[in-house]
Amino acid sequence: MPELFTVLTPQEAWSKLEPHLSVIERVEVIPSGEALGRVLAEDTAAPVDLPHFPRSAMDGYAVRAEDTHGASESQPAYLKVVGEVLMGKPAAVTLSPGEAALIHTGGMLANQSDAVVMVENTREVDVSAIEVVRPVARGENVIQVGEDMASGEALLSRGSLLRPQDIGALLALGITQVLVFQRVKVALIPTGDELVPPEDTPGLGQIRNTNAYALAGLALQAGAIPLRLDIVRDSYQALREAIMRAMALADMVVVSAGSSVSTRDMTASAIRSLGQPGVLVHGVSIRPGKPTILGVVAGKPVFGLPGNPASAMITFDLFVTPSIYRLGGCHQLPTRRQIKAKLTRNVPSAPGREDYVPVKIEERKGELYAEPVFGKSNLMFALVKADGVARIPIDRGGLAAGETVTIRMF
Amino acid sequence: MPELFTVLTPQEAWSKLEPHLSVIERVEVIPSGEALGRVLAEDTAAPVDLPHFPRSAMDGYAVRAEDTHGASESQPAYLKVVGEVLMGKPAAVTLSPGEAALIHTGGMLANQSDAVVMVENTREVDVSAIEVVRPVARGENVIQVGEDMASGEALLSRGSLLRPQDIGALLALGITQVLVFQRVKVALIPTGDELVPPEDTPGLGQIRNTNAYALAGLALQAGAIPLRLDIVRDSYQALREAIMRAMALADMVVVSAGSSVSTRDMTASAIRSLGQPGVLVHGVSIRPGKPTILGVVAGKPVFGLPGNPASAMITFDLFVTPSIYRLGGCHQLPTRRQIKAKLTRNVPSAPGREDYVPVKIEERKGELYAEPVFGKSNLMFALVKADGVARIPIDRGGLAAGETVTIRMF
Repeated sequence: MPELFTVLTPQEAWSKLEPHLSVIERVEVIPSGEALGRVLAEDTAAPVDLPHFPRSAMDGYAVRAEDTHGASESQPAYLKVVGEVLMGKPAAVTLSPGEAALIHTGGMLANQSDAVVMVENTREVDVSAIEVVRPVARGENVIQVGEDMASGEALLSRGSLLRPQDIGALLALGITQVLVFQRVKVALIPTGDELVPPEDTPGLGQIRNTNAYALAGLALQAGAIPLRLDIVRDSYQALREAIMRAMALADMVVVSAGSSVSTRDMTASAIRSLGQPGVLVHGVSIRPGKPTILGVVAGKPVFGLPGNPASAMITFDLFVTPSIYRLGGCHQLPTRRQIKAKLTRNVPSAPGREDYVPVKIEERKGELYAEPVFGKSNLMFALVKADGVARIPIDRGGLAAGETVTIRMF
Repeated sequence: MPELFTVLTPQEAWSKLEPHLSVIERVEVIPSGEALGRVLAEDTAAPVDLPHFPRSAMDGYAVRAEDTHGASESQPAYLKVVGEVLMGKPAAVTLSPGEAALIHTGGMLANQSDAVVMVENTREVDVSAIEVVRPVARGENVIQVGEDMASGEALLSRGSLLRPQDIGALLALGITQVLVFQRVKVALIPTGDELVPPEDTPGLGQIRNTNAYALAGLALQAGAIPLRLDIVRDSYQALREAIMRAMALADMVVVSAGSSVSTRDMTASAIRSLGQPGVLVHGVSIRPGKPTILGVVAGKPVFGLPGNPASAMITFDLFVTPSIYRLGGCHQLPTRRQIKAKLTRNVPSAPGREDYVPVKIEERKGELYAEPVFGKSNLMFALVKADGVARIPIDRGGLAAGETVTIRMF
């Protein structure tokens, strides 16, 4: 009855799975304004120069720079104000030598002008004349055509996860539609004779299915579409069929594999029976999360996660989340929100095992501290009280109070 | 024409606004399974004990602890196996002295048993007998009724931002519906004679409206509902009416205030004209973002943000995002994703001003470095190349290469 598997380190486990993860390649065109959090499926470049006209970077006067040479407080340059450049209009004013035009930040440079004098460096003589008290060089306070982006210049590449500023930049260049990868679909299969839906009242020996909901939350946070499937009983045939159905619906399958050895072995057998390469990893040297199964069938990842809710969440975060980004075309795994803090107390561990300990983050005098939160069997409630989980490295037999740990925020 | 306002530090500015921010108090009941990212509007407590039956924490045998006392490899305790506890069922087996029952992780303890022996510490004699090679104490490997959560115990308090584990915990206790605050509505008003919608081709002197889209992205990330309103021209009356309409639609109003001094002054005047207390802050000692306006009219915050896209984003992040959390009932401002890294080069600044410099984060040998990304006028494109903005403290005239900076990730 003991489980027969080779336990790998988290890194070894990931490196077994990683070569099998390929981008889904299903794409769609959507409005750029609605593309927050989506992943670009094309390289983008500026289709036009930005700005497409010389703009003033300041409030002041458009001038011919040579007219201001040598200007100073005691010997100001005297310029005739021949007009104003209106915002949003082509410059209607043309300067002759000795002339200036009132201009606002963002306004188009007057014709024949080549610089802008800040208003702070001028004195008004009367409504149609100013004195300039500091010289400007050609191009000073002017944003030239194409200076922000030249036509053809690369903007965002395929694989970029779009943020607010990226959307602003795309729209600034008139790229109002973008080709993005479709969201990855993740099927979640809860298994166990003891499970009832959350809305039911569990009898003796029964518990509510919660893993599928917590893992759906993690999938959403990773930009995927979670599909919560029906509870599957502890029957090899039922589980095998459920995985097959899930594979037809989704890009990857996550089995929340029950808590006993026999149900976990059943998951591994079912994955093996469905095709090549089958089970790649059965057992990872982490706590909680040791009985994690990583597999691939017909090109789709299939995960068997432990039934314990906290183990399921931590192993999802370690293996499923990065797989979602890979399948979703994201060229760079976004650094999951990780912070560093000092442990407030000793945390024992065993060398050869990577431990994840729920911690609460506290700031004292500008420094971050991680206070371990202890829970007994159902670490879900420890995770509720915690801000994240601290990683106790695999090569250490625990960490001492005061040592710095890396924390994955949840 | 120079702007007449008193510039405050970011902290002073926030402390002027903060007392005016009150929770919206509009609530709704939603399914817990759909409450990810929402803010609880009620305290929650466990309505039942969890577990509600004594559960096994291990695969093994339910026993009477006293039967195992003194057991060892050489002198094992011999127990008769009288049955198996099935998953998901009430325990149908009752133990007499000298008896054991097969049990799985999560199974209900057999009647009259008080401990579980791990399978690893047993030897099978035949199908109906085992030897136990290590003693167990009463309660060992058993999760007692109410041990995870006792009925009445506090779970999540009003103001909690719900994460995946919180949803799992609520559902584990059968709390399938929760009272949450409604999402805060943020009206975004783009202003400027030079603006055209992103889908139009701007003429000379014109640019596309992008701020409303980038700020809508930040509002979504903060859990709010952004309402992008029509572009308003540089007319006092039009702006005033637009703000009034926006106040009727939304919980707060953000005016993207154009880039020239006159349009910014117009925003301040319009806010002042609409009621008390009006403009609270006009000018903050940050770069970019100095001409930021913080105001409150009829209990609703009204912001005038600079027209420069990067300035608008940074000031939104500093002032509007925390206001969204306040109005949305979140009792603790979630630490915005902030990290620390070492500057790769000197960054000049002026004392008395807090500078925000776009930086790219690079990891070298496990250490994080922040490489400043320079851009000329439109820092939006610098933000596209960057991962966040580094803060140069107000009391420093810049920072030197190698110094540690705090970075707000974008």
